Amino acid sequence: MNLFNNHSAILLIYCPDRKGLVATITRFLSDHNGNILEIDQHVDKEHRVFFMRVKWDLQGFKIPESKIQEKFKEEIAKPLNLAWQLYFTKNIPRMAVFVSRYPHCLHDILARYNSGEWKVEISLIISNHKDLQPLAERYEIDFHYFHVTPENKADGEIKQRHLLKKHGIDFIILARYMQILSEDFVSEYTSRIINIHHSFLPAFPGAKPYHSAYKRGVKVIGATSHYVTSELDQGPIIEQDVIHVNHRHSVDDLVRKGRDLEKIVLSRAIWHHLQRKTLVFENRTIVFQ
Amino acid sequence: MNLFNNHSAILLIYCPDRKGLVATITRFLSDHNGNILEIDQHVDKEHRVFFMRVKWDLQGFKIPESKIQEKFKEEIAKPLNLAWQLYFTKNIPRMAVFVSRYPHCLHDILARYNSGEWKVEISLIISNHKDLQPLAERYEIDFHYFHVTPENKADGEIKQRHLLKKHGIDFIILARYMQILSEDFVSEYTSRIINIHHSFLPAFPGAKPYHSAYKRGVKVIGATSHYVTSELDQGPIIEQDVIHVNHRHSVDDLVRKGRDLEKIVLSRAIWHHLQRKTLVFENRTIVFQ
Amino acid sequence: MNLFNNHSAILLIYCPDRKGLVATITRFLSDHNGNILEIDQHVDKEHRVFFMRVKWDLQGFKIPESKIQEKFKEEIAKPLNLAWQLYFTKNIPRMAVFVSRYPHCLHDILARYNSGEWKVEISLIISNHKDLQPLAERYEIDFHYFHVTPENKADGEIKQRHLLKKHGIDFIILARYMQILSEDFVSEYTSRIINIHHSFLPAFPGAKPYHSAYKRGVKVIGATSHYVTSELDQGPIIEQDVIHVNHRHSVDDLVRKGRDLEKIVLSRAIWHHLQRKTLVFENRTIVFQ
Amino acid sequence: MNLFNNHSAILLIYCPDRKGLVATITRFLSDHNGNILEIDQHVDKEHRVFFMRVKWDLQGFKIPESKIQEKFKEEIAKPLNLAWQLYFTKNIPRMAVFVSRYPHCLHDILARYNSGEWKVEISLIISNHKDLQPLAERYEIDFHYFHVTPENKADGEIKQRHLLKKHGIDFIILARYMQILSEDFVSEYTSRIINIHHSFLPAFPGAKPYHSAYKRGVKVIGATSHYVTSELDQGPIIEQDVIHVNHRHSVDDLVRKGRDLEKIVLSRAIWHHLQRKTLVFENRTIVFQ
Repeated sequence: MNLFNNHSAILLIYCPDRKGLVATITRFLSDHNGNILEIDQHVDKEHRVFFMRVKWDLQGFKIPESKIQEKFKEEIAKPLNLAWQLYFTKNIPRMAVFVSRYPHCLHDILARYNSGEWKVEISLIISNHKDLQPLAERYEIDFHYFHVTPENKADGEIKQRHLLKKHGIDFIILARYMQILSEDFVSEYTSRIINIHHSFLPAFPGAKPYHSAYKRGVKVIGATSHYVTSELDQGPIIEQDVIHVNHRHSVDDLVRKGRDLEKIVLSRAIWHHLQRKTLVFENRTIVFQ
Repeated sequence: MNLFNNHSAILLIYCPDRKGLVATITRFLSDHNGNILEIDQHVDKEHRVFFMRVKWDLQGFKIPESKIQEKFKEEIAKPLNLAWQLYFTKNIPRMAVFVSRYPHCLHDILARYNSGEWKVEISLIISNHKDLQPLAERYEIDFHYFHVTPENKADGEIKQRHLLKKHGIDFIILARYMQILSEDFVSEYTSRIINIHHSFLPAFPGAKPYHSAYKRGVKVIGATSHYVTSELDQGPIIEQDVIHVNHRHSVDDLVRKGRDLEKIVLSRAIWHHLQRKTLVFENRTIVFQ
Repeated sequence: MNLFNNHSAILLIYCPDRKGLVATITRFLSDHNGNILEIDQHVDKEHRVFFMRVKWDLQGFKIPESKIQEKFKEEIAKPLNLAWQLYFTKNIPRMAVFVSRYPHCLHDILARYNSGEWKVEISLIISNHKDLQPLAERYEIDFHYFHVTPENKADGEIKQRHLLKKHGIDFIILARYMQILSEDFVSEYTSRIINIHHSFLPAFPGAKPYHSAYKRGVKVIGATSHYVTSELDQGPIIEQDVIHVNHRHSVDDLVRKGRDLEKIVLSRAIWHHLQRKTLVFENRTIVFQ
Repeated sequence: MNLFNNHSAILLIYCPDRKGLVATITRFLSDHNGNILEIDQHVDKEHRVFFMRVKWDLQGFKIPESKIQEKFKEEIAKPLNLAWQLYFTKNIPRMAVFVSRYPHCLHDILARYNSGEWKVEISLIISNHKDLQPLAERYEIDFHYFHVTPENKADGEIKQRHLLKKHGIDFIILARYMQILSEDFVSEYTSRIINIHHSFLPAFPGAKPYHSAYKRGVKVIGATSHYVTSELDQGPIIEQDVIHVNHRHSVDDLVRKGRDLEKIVLSRAIWHHLQRKTLVFENRTIVFQ
């Protein structure tokens, strides 16, 4: 796909809303002969905050790649007082996957990875169970098992975070990982840990949502991917989807049907994240077009 | 539609599950030359309870209509210890609608009623506001306004229940009615009051669910129709549906989009109820095919 | 809703894509103190065409309303060679509805009209049947019946177009109107006639799509709203939606379930049109956010 | 899952509709102490044909497993003139997968196979390309490459059919296999070859449906799994689903989004087939509950 061949840059921006922002920022690009490939903006009218994502071709762009950061900062970001991030699509992000015993999300991630659907490097799988080690080995990815007990949990996290550093990990996927990360861990990777929860949040947070859904007699079940924050299942939602169910479906049926939802919803969230299409503000997620 | 021309009978049954129930009940019908039009059954394996709905043609049926009740009771229901209900499709149920100020659900109900989509008689609209009186008059349906205050609420309910009796009302629709009915009222019409709630329950029960949904940053919003029980928004769910939303949608957008969901979900629930396709067990709803 | 109180202007633009378009157009607005309320753009990369919609507050805008057209033309549209349309939200568009015998779409339109959901004036209903005259009268809207035969069809259209002129109609809704309009008629109202077709086009164009869907054994049925062109059911699609069906559903069931789809899909298309969010290019529709 | 532990039998039946069928068939089971686990029936009112699926526990069933076939034939099937199939859940069906170059459906199938989600044996993958051989090897499944030319196609099919026999294959999945099977081949495996087509049929049959969908400007895209018949993309549909798209989506986006649909829709169809829940009649598919 030619999406991946692009040598382009992406800016994610937010700042207090005021007149002329779009004009000023796009003028910066056109003045330096930048060809805009994708642009989207949003104004949160409640908080009066402006959000923007712009992707442009670096071919023919008059500012050398190594100077863009500085130049944008001096000419635009500082005067306008922007919060901003700059990405180059040539840089391939590094991702770690945390799993427990359920394989479906990991399978889906590895399938996409293996077929080159995503521009990402998966160099590390961490688990508190050994069940998925053979699957990791099938795809020749480093697998690290941590036996987790209340006593060794803190110590294990230190080792995990060391591993993440060693592998140069940019972001983490919790692919049905059944452990809660410490506040410390989470805050080190703010908006860089994506979890999949097997319900349409805020309904049925916590453990055994399919059992709760069955008991409540709902006619739809869902899955939610979100950035992890220190409060369990309360982080900003990236993607959600649901399917219809009925009285015939046992808890086992909900679990089975839910698996397909979970893996697709998680993979869509990873896609958005990889495309640098997400911004978090006030515990809500802007997912640009 | 020929559905409405049928001179047929419907049995709704439940009982402890055991072998031979389908055979025994269907044999009763075929032995008396009954032609089964629709049949569906379900076994709740957790509680070991058997549920069945069967509709058959009364043309050619050997038991006279006036004797079916007695005969089924003696031959089948008593020996098998069934809980059961018998309906004749020629009897048109009478429905009351409770509303407050939002017109969309009432509009949708009256449109279907006016075009003969439902086999029902709507003879009464009750409201705690006068806003929808002109709409009721447009369709020439009795409209009763009750100014509700904490002081006169109990008294108002007595009058409302008197009105329901006077009009021979079989079941009640709360079409965005913004008052909570007393436990007494609800228990008089068990599984005969249908409410529409503007969220996918159990998420966002109570007041202002669209505001809560916006604040939580969900990517889907929903609507839920359920039988009313004494606990607010906790009754057995009949129908649910959702639509996707994103960060661009303001609370006003959610309200606007939600209206279409609410009216369709409520009308689907009314349809199931009118078709005698619903049974409630352990706060869950069986909706037969 | 405050959407309707806005005193604002909307520009719809398209032109060959080139660098700096967003900057130039947004600069025009910010230079004259225009506060952008909504902005969206799109580049058709295949045809290298740029599309844009921008809505801004007229309060505080330095160019008087009566001069915007001229000023934009001179400063921007002419130099950049734009195709463009300018709308003021204070102007309420006038809509005519063509119907035959099915009432559900008309009911839905009148319900929204009656409750003030849309900023539109419905001043005319035209039909080739008398069935819906009582409904039009219920809402006190002019109803004109045309008995259509192969012989008088051309003559009837002349009279209809005369009526449309007399009522100052801006756009037309075919709400399950079962007649084909002449090429002449259609070309007078290019991108201003919206039809609802009861299938997910391009499947099942023409007559009796539910019968065809049943026969083909599809597991989803759909509805499609589109701008009318001279080729039957081939016009640019504005909105589509589907629902799941199964082998149990008779043709009558498909018709019944389809009605809800049709009315919602048509009303969504009308909403987009009223918001000036649609542009047609190469028989495809851009529906701005 | 305990579904797989069941030692049970499944009957699929169809015959001209008449009174007493349900009673007679269920009586046969209850008379021999059979505990019904699942039962569903359907009447095609147009053709007056009765369809039934019943699954019962073999524990405690009075007829020995080896005699059920004969006994049912003598006592029920012959007198009632039924078309019928009998399955025992202990028998694990054998499946072959045909692929070309797209890996996503094969990946999804192998993931489910590998994690024990399906009760099936995949012993053979056949392809007209070598691209997916490494994937087959990763999961240690026999992979057979056939270089297909117009000249050797007939010969190749003979070899393929020989392989299928040798492996005792019960049914075949075309997981984005880009070759058309001969009529002979297809008729040998009637209702036992499942294809996935990347559109909502009957729209966009044949080659390049995403390109056609883009060009037509549809707002939904879909995927369809169906039993293969001698007419291309005309076989009875088992499962369909769609997702919403808009003008922003390029053909590449449709292809990317479509992949997720295709794999899920195909896997759902395989699930129904494995559960013996499908019956084909008049080019339509009954999918039992």
